[in-house]
Amino acid sequence: MQPNFTRRDVLRGSVAFAATVMTRTPLAALGFPEPEAGSTPVPFVTPQIKSPNRPMVHWDTLTDWQTDNASVYVVSHYNKPDLAADDWRLNVAGFVERPATFTLADLKQRPRKELLATLECGGNGASPTFLGAAANVRWTGTPLAPLLKECGLKKRGLEVAFFGADQKQEKVREQEFEMRFSRSLALGDALRDDVLLCWEMNGQPLPREHGFPLRLVVPGWYGIAWVKWLTRIEVLDRRLMSKYMGREYVTIRGEDVGGQTLWRETSVSFMNVKSVVARVLKLKDGTLRVSGAAWSDGTPIQTVELKLDDGPWQPVKLDTTRQSKYSWTFWWFDWKGAPVGEHTLVSRATDADGRVQPAPDDPAIKLKKTYWEANQQWSRKIRI
Amino acid sequence: MQPNFTRRDVLRGSVAFAATVMTRTPLAALGFPEPEAGSTPVPFVTPQIKSPNRPMVHWDTLTDWQTDNASVYVVSHYNKPDLAADDWRLNVAGFVERPATFTLADLKQRPRKELLATLECGGNGASPTFLGAAANVRWTGTPLAPLLKECGLKKRGLEVAFFGADQKQEKVREQEFEMRFSRSLALGDALRDDVLLCWEMNGQPLPREHGFPLRLVVPGWYGIAWVKWLTRIEVLDRRLMSKYMGREYVTIRGEDVGGQTLWRETSVSFMNVKSVVARVLKLKDGTLRVSGAAWSDGTPIQTVELKLDDGPWQPVKLDTTRQSKYSWTFWWFDWKGAPVGEHTLVSRATDADGRVQPAPDDPAIKLKKTYWEANQQWSRKIRI
Repeated sequence: MQPNFTRRDVLRGSVAFAATVMTRTPLAALGFPEPEAGSTPVPFVTPQIKSPNRPMVHWDTLTDWQTDNASVYVVSHYNKPDLAADDWRLNVAGFVERPATFTLADLKQRPRKELLATLECGGNGASPTFLGAAANVRWTGTPLAPLLKECGLKKRGLEVAFFGADQKQEKVREQEFEMRFSRSLALGDALRDDVLLCWEMNGQPLPREHGFPLRLVVPGWYGIAWVKWLTRIEVLDRRLMSKYMGREYVTIRGEDVGGQTLWRETSVSFMNVKSVVARVLKLKDGTLRVSGAAWSDGTPIQTVELKLDDGPWQPVKLDTTRQSKYSWTFWWFDWKGAPVGEHTLVSRATDADGRVQPAPDDPAIKLKKTYWEANQQWSRKIRI
Repeated sequence: MQPNFTRRDVLRGSVAFAATVMTRTPLAALGFPEPEAGSTPVPFVTPQIKSPNRPMVHWDTLTDWQTDNASVYVVSHYNKPDLAADDWRLNVAGFVERPATFTLADLKQRPRKELLATLECGGNGASPTFLGAAANVRWTGTPLAPLLKECGLKKRGLEVAFFGADQKQEKVREQEFEMRFSRSLALGDALRDDVLLCWEMNGQPLPREHGFPLRLVVPGWYGIAWVKWLTRIEVLDRRLMSKYMGREYVTIRGEDVGGQTLWRETSVSFMNVKSVVARVLKLKDGTLRVSGAAWSDGTPIQTVELKLDDGPWQPVKLDTTRQSKYSWTFWWFDWKGAPVGEHTLVSRATDADGRVQPAPDDPAIKLKKTYWEANQQWSRKIRI
């Protein structure tokens, strides 16, 4: 497991400051190759937009493989309940032989599991103002599957529905309902051994805005599935179609089928293969060190390639020592002899199943008419 | 297999006329016990509303276990394409190793399977004007599962989506799309051996309004899943959330959970256990013969009970000789010595899993805020 190098000052600091910290913690240990002393950051022509009130990953100062809690994006659709750990209960109900209620202490006595997994908002990358809603976090909790099995799954079970304590008055079909946030997973997805009931982020109790005291962790899936403030789990014999299943987080995508566009609406679920150019450093000898991250739904990242201006796609180096199934992979490329002027850098990732991160003009992106699942290649410009 | 007694005049005829036909076809052979000669129909105080332009089952004249094609309800959400069998093709695509195209002749050369199954509209019973949108039909086609398996299911497959040729301009998220009707089934449901690609109803080619040349038959599921004018099947690695999955045919139902109403929105899928009082005949000796039908998702009907006015629930006789897994079951009850006046008759069915057809004031019905899946007990009044 990754040591807990999550100090905010490391993440947010300048390269110079980071270099100071590096005397104690080599950058290499944090996932990036060690920049030489005296290297300087190369700014982007259009920097990532940062809002002081909105936690985000800031790609251009990112040095740590793991994201500290304060930099993890927060997206919540209903209220943000302030739950007391002592009063909190988790109910397991529905198509189980033995419905059960768990306290937080009950859960903490169960087998403990930690994993590093990238959490990404389904809307991340949809616009230039929303490019840092991804984070790589060490999650701690207990696996869901054995708990469900202990409750005795009935044969009619088709889905597992997760209800948060967060709620909102919603108008549905001209009627008002006090709706609780809910999402579901197909039974097979819910029973994966890496789906966790999680109470810690990076070794700290879950912060309130991340779902204290318990959230679902669904590695490889977009954040909408990672239900926060979890208080109820129901095994259902039919499909849940709550607002955030059936109406929101639904991707509309077209495809040319026999000369006609066939439109499909599908639920945002597992993460599409994606990479980003995070930052560029100019080393002492003038080499431009381009680095970034790539991630997927857990399918191994096979290659990341980088295109410099109108050049060919060139393979980059993957930080294989740090690859972890559901975590992003850091990568870097040393560009020697870059001419003075403006340059365009764009990366693309390919996973072991052969799925390639699409170009913005790929039909898979051009015919996507909603903002979710925006995994198109993200072009960035520098001036040197 | 059921003989093809589907003459409309039998179904629609008066009891007197039916009695004439019965000299050739005993009523018992049609599912109902033989009424004595001279029996007379007892009208309902509020008769089922019939529209000459809208095919429906007319419960009060129903004698045939099987429903003739002309009496099968028609609900279509988009247009009703007029397809030519020769031009028609079925494409199988998506997460399969070997995408394939089938002509109608290709399909007809595959193993032929017939089954009797009750088709019911998800909205049947929601209002007094919409009470006959159910039918019991002999369907003929070929099982879907072997065809899908021959195309080579890839391991990422989660759902099977079915696209009709019927389409409509739809506004979704402020954009216009030419959408094709589509529904999906979880892979496990799609691979059931009784899910058919069907080209015949009651021994006749599928009528246009029922999806000529091919529709999906999903025994035990409400009609919305039985996609008509089927031309494309796609194995998907994610969930389809088309209009008729995610936004329409979504039941909103509340349940009291710890003193709070927990609302759930779920997709209309398999049929809920249901029974109806269909008709009442007065026999020569004054006995009232109450008969009706009961059906479910394929789970055996365990009992049907009848409540006469304020009396206790009394078991009725089930026509066990005619029970077929996905077909309705006919039942009857002989009421002797019914006093003159107005009487209320209500039936309830219970399936072998112990699910009971709920009373209208059961929370399962009271807290159902949409019209689909209206399986509440249906009270009918007679005056004698």
